[in-house]
Amino acid sequence: MNKPLRIGIAGLGNVGVGVVKILAERKDFLAAASGRALQLVAVSARDKAKDRGIDLAGVRWDDDARALASADDIDVVVELIGGAEGIARELVDQALSNGKHVVTANKALVARHGVAQARVAEQRGVALNYEAAVAGGIPIIKALREGLTANEITSVAGILNGTCNYILTEMEETGREFTDVLIDAQALGYAEADPSFDVGGIDAAHKLAILASLAFGREVSFDDVEVEGIERITASDINFAKEFGYKIKLLGIATLGEDGISQRVHPTLVPVGTPLAAVSGVYNAVAIQGDRVGSLVLEGRGAGEGPTASAVLSDIVDIARGLVMPSFIVPASSLKAPAKAKSDHVTSSYYLRFNAADRPGTMAEITKALAQANVSIERIVQRGEEKDAATGRMPVVFMTHETEEGSMRKAREELAKHEDVAGTPLVIRIDESGSR
Amino acid sequence: MNKPLRIGIAGLGNVGVGVVKILAERKDFLAAASGRALQLVAVSARDKAKDRGIDLAGVRWDDDARALASADDIDVVVELIGGAEGIARELVDQALSNGKHVVTANKALVARHGVAQARVAEQRGVALNYEAAVAGGIPIIKALREGLTANEITSVAGILNGTCNYILTEMEETGREFTDVLIDAQALGYAEADPSFDVGGIDAAHKLAILASLAFGREVSFDDVEVEGIERITASDINFAKEFGYKIKLLGIATLGEDGISQRVHPTLVPVGTPLAAVSGVYNAVAIQGDRVGSLVLEGRGAGEGPTASAVLSDIVDIARGLVMPSFIVPASSLKAPAKAKSDHVTSSYYLRFNAADRPGTMAEITKALAQANVSIERIVQRGEEKDAATGRMPVVFMTHETEEGSMRKAREELAKHEDVAGTPLVIRIDESGSR
Repeated sequence: MNKPLRIGIAGLGNVGVGVVKILAERKDFLAAASGRALQLVAVSARDKAKDRGIDLAGVRWDDDARALASADDIDVVVELIGGAEGIARELVDQALSNGKHVVTANKALVARHGVAQARVAEQRGVALNYEAAVAGGIPIIKALREGLTANEITSVAGILNGTCNYILTEMEETGREFTDVLIDAQALGYAEADPSFDVGGIDAAHKLAILASLAFGREVSFDDVEVEGIERITASDINFAKEFGYKIKLLGIATLGEDGISQRVHPTLVPVGTPLAAVSGVYNAVAIQGDRVGSLVLEGRGAGEGPTASAVLSDIVDIARGLVMPSFIVPASSLKAPAKAKSDHVTSSYYLRFNAADRPGTMAEITKALAQANVSIERIVQRGEEKDAATGRMPVVFMTHETEEGSMRKAREELAKHEDVAGTPLVIRIDESGSR
Repeated sequence: MNKPLRIGIAGLGNVGVGVVKILAERKDFLAAASGRALQLVAVSARDKAKDRGIDLAGVRWDDDARALASADDIDVVVELIGGAEGIARELVDQALSNGKHVVTANKALVARHGVAQARVAEQRGVALNYEAAVAGGIPIIKALREGLTANEITSVAGILNGTCNYILTEMEETGREFTDVLIDAQALGYAEADPSFDVGGIDAAHKLAILASLAFGREVSFDDVEVEGIERITASDINFAKEFGYKIKLLGIATLGEDGISQRVHPTLVPVGTPLAAVSGVYNAVAIQGDRVGSLVLEGRGAGEGPTASAVLSDIVDIARGLVMPSFIVPASSLKAPAKAKSDHVTSSYYLRFNAADRPGTMAEITKALAQANVSIERIVQRGEEKDAATGRMPVVFMTHETEEGSMRKAREELAKHEDVAGTPLVIRIDESGSR
């Protein structure tokens, strides 16, 4: 048997604890699968005194995580600190520079600095692995980086944030409003005290940018992702969508078009009966379109101690088995530059909802404004019984035919200015492909 | 850049032609991803004169595939001949013995001889890869062998045969009977002239035995798979199932229990709303339960030139990238011996259907026989309007509570003997878990 693979773990939150547990509980199997022992040598975390329910006897404790990057007795640094900057970034930079393999679950770091770090890793002949950074326990990085290399990928679409999917599912099942459900989700530990990263779509955007890089062989371009969160979705929107045969999901969608790559995270109407519409609660799913493989969908738990630790371990076992490959499908130096598509030319059908005054002539003016913006209407729903007694307004919903994004933006601006329309209309794309 | 990886392909059917095309069309990308060129050196097939629409200029033609196994200028032999014995087996045996990597799409070969061949591969330090052997373009081998090593897998369940799933989907959508749909499927090329391998469940059993080995770290034990095909399913069964909220799918299911491994391929009632119930047409899907990752479902195209060639290429790229690992999750010498569970102790609910004479007292006698076999009934459906005018018989359907397999077998035997029951009753398991 070969020499043990010596591991240092930085960060002992849920996931770090999960990794330590698996290393102990599956020791013999992992050694057999890897062809060598996986040996935990050192850990680093904030509070040494805290009882985490794991046995760290014989494991060195470093108060400064960066010590792991220069320790002679460590082959792999596992970064579970989080955050795109600060200690996490320094640790990964230093570890790679020192010729140590790195495994990380840090989507923000990979989305911001992954390509630069991959360059260093490849120069030093070490691995930078990040399966746990996207979609938790789903082996989606492996699928794109290794399983689908024969394909030109034309689109990747996914439910990439379990918190949002949980909230939307709860809203659908209970009829409650976003804010109510969010408060419960926070109490249950499904949402952070500051939920903006999740519900605002940033977390999903980090993950989408990573998937897009792998799918299209381009440098990660997080800043090119157009992001819209789920904060404005109401129980009424979910009901209207249901009536029309759709579910509302926060999707991350990256597509390859003639004029470049489009990367978008936004609420989306997904037809009932398609794979992504059926993904509920904290589950994640990713749908891939490849020219050879056709449609491929992977669904599983996107977060939590077990699934995330499972992904971290698979990265460690890959390294133990001697697998070192480009972090982003081709060597970082061969990745193409980002090329953002002009989204104005992307067409889609849209769901458009606003509250309007119940006044003769309002509808005529609104439909005229839509026509002038070149938006063609497929369906209108307006219900007198939903009129708000206090304001005299009622929700009006339009479903449009295929429309250019630029036209839709113009229509929204015009309607927002209209005296009978309250606030800015909510516009949600309809994904008729169901991402299959 | 490293030396080219030199490839010999045996078998130029659809899949072989697909592989040749991808090697040519994605040449530069594959070289970048692999860190070396992928060079097609030689091919072998039956008919040299046949026009396959591919350019083989500069590629050596060997009339005898086995020549590839001993050619000095070949690093990887790609076996696409098929069949568990004969030339395919000889070719793989010889190539591995000669220290050449092997990539194969041959499920029968891997199910029968894969472990013995993996032993040779591991002694010689070469890879034996077979991603294309199970579920076509779905990277399920990679997921189990590499992505989920942290997990104790407790079950693997899948729709593993596209022909069967196509036939069952067509029967459901058109109301036509099995034989009619099969004839059409043959005309469309979705079913072989001799369809028994597919509709009899053998093909799915080969695939299930391979998945079970990877999931449970045991030697492949194809002979332990209990197999039942879809030949006896009628349009009426599909209707009854629908009425009760189920779809009928041919599932391969492998579970880890206290007394060993259970491997079964049979028609199954799967609840509508669960992932496997939604998989239609020629699609395949695999649902995995792991102790850390929870539930994971992968869905995609299970056959055809593109998806299968995509899987073959991913195996080749792995080898080009220098990845050589155990073929079955741990080295063949570390795989545990098969341990077949006593299926009599497995409990399930059942769907039971037979045609019975419409005579006073028949139902009393039948329900008494079921009670004596310790089968408890949840629901009975009998419809006078479906009475066959010629025979005077009508279909009777029972849904049972949880029942031991042994009891169900006994009940079926008793009913088959009953003078008012025509033939042997059809018994279908109900998978309430929906394999999630």
